Amino acid sequence: MTQDPAKRTSNVRPATTESTALLTDHYELTMVDAAMHDGTADRECVFELFARKLPNDRRYGVNAGIGRALELLQHFRFSDAELQFLSDNKVVSPNTIEWLANYKFSGSIRGYREGEVYFPQSPLLEIRSSFAEGVILETLFLSVYNYDSAVASAAARMVSAAGGRPLAEMGSRRTGERSAVAAARAAYIAGFSATSNLEAGRTWGVPTMGTAAHSWTLLHESEPEAFKAQVAALGTDTTLLVDTYDVEQGVRNAIAAGGTELGGVRIDSGDLPVQVREVRDQLDDLGAVNTKITVTNDLDEYAIAALAASPVDSYGVGTSVVTGSGAVASGMVYKLVARKDDSGNWVPVAKASPGKHSVGGLKYPVRRRDNGVASAELLSVGGMPVGDEDDRPLYVDFVVDGVLDRQWIGPEGVQLAREHNAKAIAELPRTALRLGRGEPALATYYIDEHGNTSLA
Amino acid sequence: MTQDPAKRTSNVRPATTESTALLTDHYELTMVDAAMHDGTADRECVFELFARKLPNDRRYGVNAGIGRALELLQHFRFSDAELQFLSDNKVVSPNTIEWLANYKFSGSIRGYREGEVYFPQSPLLEIRSSFAEGVILETLFLSVYNYDSAVASAAARMVSAAGGRPLAEMGSRRTGERSAVAAARAAYIAGFSATSNLEAGRTWGVPTMGTAAHSWTLLHESEPEAFKAQVAALGTDTTLLVDTYDVEQGVRNAIAAGGTELGGVRIDSGDLPVQVREVRDQLDDLGAVNTKITVTNDLDEYAIAALAASPVDSYGVGTSVVTGSGAVASGMVYKLVARKDDSGNWVPVAKASPGKHSVGGLKYPVRRRDNGVASAELLSVGGMPVGDEDDRPLYVDFVVDGVLDRQWIGPEGVQLAREHNAKAIAELPRTALRLGRGEPALATYYIDEHGNTSLA
Repeated sequence: MTQDPAKRTSNVRPATTESTALLTDHYELTMVDAAMHDGTADRECVFELFARKLPNDRRYGVNAGIGRALELLQHFRFSDAELQFLSDNKVVSPNTIEWLANYKFSGSIRGYREGEVYFPQSPLLEIRSSFAEGVILETLFLSVYNYDSAVASAAARMVSAAGGRPLAEMGSRRTGERSAVAAARAAYIAGFSATSNLEAGRTWGVPTMGTAAHSWTLLHESEPEAFKAQVAALGTDTTLLVDTYDVEQGVRNAIAAGGTELGGVRIDSGDLPVQVREVRDQLDDLGAVNTKITVTNDLDEYAIAALAASPVDSYGVGTSVVTGSGAVASGMVYKLVARKDDSGNWVPVAKASPGKHSVGGLKYPVRRRDNGVASAELLSVGGMPVGDEDDRPLYVDFVVDGVLDRQWIGPEGVQLAREHNAKAIAELPRTALRLGRGEPALATYYIDEHGNTSLA
Repeated sequence: MTQDPAKRTSNVRPATTESTALLTDHYELTMVDAAMHDGTADRECVFELFARKLPNDRRYGVNAGIGRALELLQHFRFSDAELQFLSDNKVVSPNTIEWLANYKFSGSIRGYREGEVYFPQSPLLEIRSSFAEGVILETLFLSVYNYDSAVASAAARMVSAAGGRPLAEMGSRRTGERSAVAAARAAYIAGFSATSNLEAGRTWGVPTMGTAAHSWTLLHESEPEAFKAQVAALGTDTTLLVDTYDVEQGVRNAIAAGGTELGGVRIDSGDLPVQVREVRDQLDDLGAVNTKITVTNDLDEYAIAALAASPVDSYGVGTSVVTGSGAVASGMVYKLVARKDDSGNWVPVAKASPGKHSVGGLKYPVRRRDNGVASAELLSVGGMPVGDEDDRPLYVDFVVDGVLDRQWIGPEGVQLAREHNAKAIAELPRTALRLGRGEPALATYYIDEHGNTSLA
């Protein structure tokens, strides 16, 4: 049932006209209002999006979301309907209403490529604009990055654990209905092969797949009848779900219905390592040596790893991937790190709240490599670090003076991100792929203007 | 900054035209396709949406989502764009494309009111329709219920823990950008007073609030300058964030800027019970006895409970409420429980997978009460239970033969749900409000056709 992405038709999704401008926290508009009042609204600023740490002591994270964030930014416009709401509810003053009516982001955004791996303090996005233009993007960008990166980070660990066997994302029902589409996209970027979510197929070009649920079997008088009907309708290549009643009988019924060339059987319950081995033996005994086994019962990266020695052909993963496998928000923040003073000089700024320290100033991140293997994350403050030939600069431009680079959006952006992710992960030291808790695979260092290095 | 809901203007959100029909798993359409092929598509069926257990050994859950699900159902139509995608990618056969083109749900949906509390096996929704019409709603309905109920269930515990002090939902940035709107709505239904999310204000009539972030202070040359500018723009009634640098100095600067009639101060870091007491004393010493204290640092129901004896005036809750406080998906499932046979009789059906047992047949749920206090959840199979006068029937009609009862949707539906939630929680035994792990507050019983009772 999996589509070949190459055969996918061009994106036929009708253009959305829905404004994203109110997917915003009230206080962002209040700050714009106050800044209009005291003349600081136009002060040139740099905001940075980053995570202070990796969740659950993981070794690396996967950066995802920019392709979606850029599309949402294009619809971040205040039409009459949004302005009416803000005005009726006195969220901001009439002056500010007028400014919002003309809002279109005119600054610059650069950052880590989608699919790039990241570490604590990696400056994933840098937004350079007036204070007012940049501050009102905080919530929307964080919503996208926190969720999409949580899914991609979990998915990448599952892909490693699967050791080359294909994974399908099937968790749409375990997350909000629109987050489900984002989750399918993020999992695909991190190396999943397919999704069950049709909208993700249409909007982002992710291959979709699926055959039948338990309700199909229950709809019929008997399991053999259900299986025969499914094979008649969908062909011998279909996958039959064999655990509605009794797995052993289910496998017998499946091969009776589909013959020894049946495409596959799916198991959605039970003690999988034992079950899978029994089903494989049974299929082989029945002569169905090419019939594949898909398992889909509450899998996460650990359960997948535990099945490494079992004759599984593919995995379907639901809840755990769409909920970031125990870390559903990535803990990313959006902070003002520099502003221009009245003489036009950049002033680094940072708050001092306990446990929430951040480092001010503009950063130039590179990934240091030794013989092609990543060895450190270097954040050079104030200018590019003195060049090591093998350093890989991590920033690319997404928006320059309000103009979007369209290569990063749409299904094409997703493909680029997926390819980049595979390369970025291949570049990591092998220890990065350990599933257990530990230190980040790379340490992050700041390099100051004088070339002095300090651990982040 | 909180709006009075009574002053809210009518819903000014422009009608969405976006189809929700592809927010669906591939296999649902494959099953429709197979059912068209073997003639079972029109077989009359009953699907049920329920949870097998409460997450994390909680005492009760809060049912949320139907108001959103019904609105999404109205847009569950296949336009040319959706059909083109399905056809180009051969998801279904041409016959089925034609059927989908005419799809409009014509069955009946009843279930628990939004805001109702629930227990393991509570049949939250009953969808009665042809197999094909009902099966394709599975994923969309589950996405909505699993997420919205996770948030409402967590929020209700926080409301209890706060003991009457107001709570604001501020977690938009910690969940997908559209889930954020749903989260604000669900938290409000469960008793939160307000949200930071502007779209939730517009779409669902949830009061919105917020003043300023750390970036506001960092934008200015100094904290006193930032505070003075905020008070000048937003008035003395505003809330100043006092922990960007040093809290004690921040409080002094706040009162210097706003005077002793300053509306409030907000603390977003540190050891809160100690911090809050110190700030209250300092405010009182400065003569700002009416200035309120809001705390917003990584709160969940346990942290809120731990602040019960502290002079906090209101709470702002982020990550924990929008992520269901450790249970971000409610574990709800959508199962075929009955179908009509060829003679037109209902046949109960249920799968037998280990650990995933479900009970077939149509159910009539009531909440049994003793002197007005809820004492049990009774699911009578096959007909209403023999009446106890104090039993409260739990089903209401949402859709009858394809016709939606509009009282349950829009901002009005949200208000009804919020009021109902307060009543349903007040009716629970006091032990239900314990935060610790334990058994569900009410046991769930099945009653069979003969009046025999068994524990679910």
